[in-house]
Amino acid sequence: MQGDPVIRFGKRVRELRDSQAITQDELAHRAGMDRSYVGQIERGEKNITIKGIYKLASALGVRAFQLLD
Amino acid sequence: MQGDPVIRFGKRVRELRDSQAITQDELAHRAGMDRSYVGQIERGEKNITIKGIYKLASALGVRAFQLLD
Repeated sequence: MQGDPVIRFGKRVRELRDSQAITQDELAHRAGMDRSYVGQIERGEKNITIKGIYKLASALGVRAFQLLD
Repeated sequence: MQGDPVIRFGKRVRELRDSQAITQDELAHRAGMDRSYVGQIERGEKNITIKGIYKLASALGVRAFQLLD
């Protein structure tokens, strides 16, 4: 798997959010996170933790393992 | 999925390590981590990051998504 996993993770979150046509605001609200933090995650700027991964997965309605490769 | 994902993650790492009959020392060495840190992870005491997950997955010879549920 090439490249930085944090960047790939952010792209994956962005793809799933876009596919559900929800805004960063809405995803942040669902995940109990700040919108700007979600933006940083999607840009691959945040090396988040296991709990953060599960919060985002739940907010996106997917299983946590689906956010990794 | 019931319970704390950090605890489930630690159990998963422990199961995989045991199934490969390698010590915490060996896993820590492969992952570039301290042995005591690996012990804390396995006991569910460390809410590690995406990069940490990938380091452990690589050290265990599995894909990162296999360490989550």
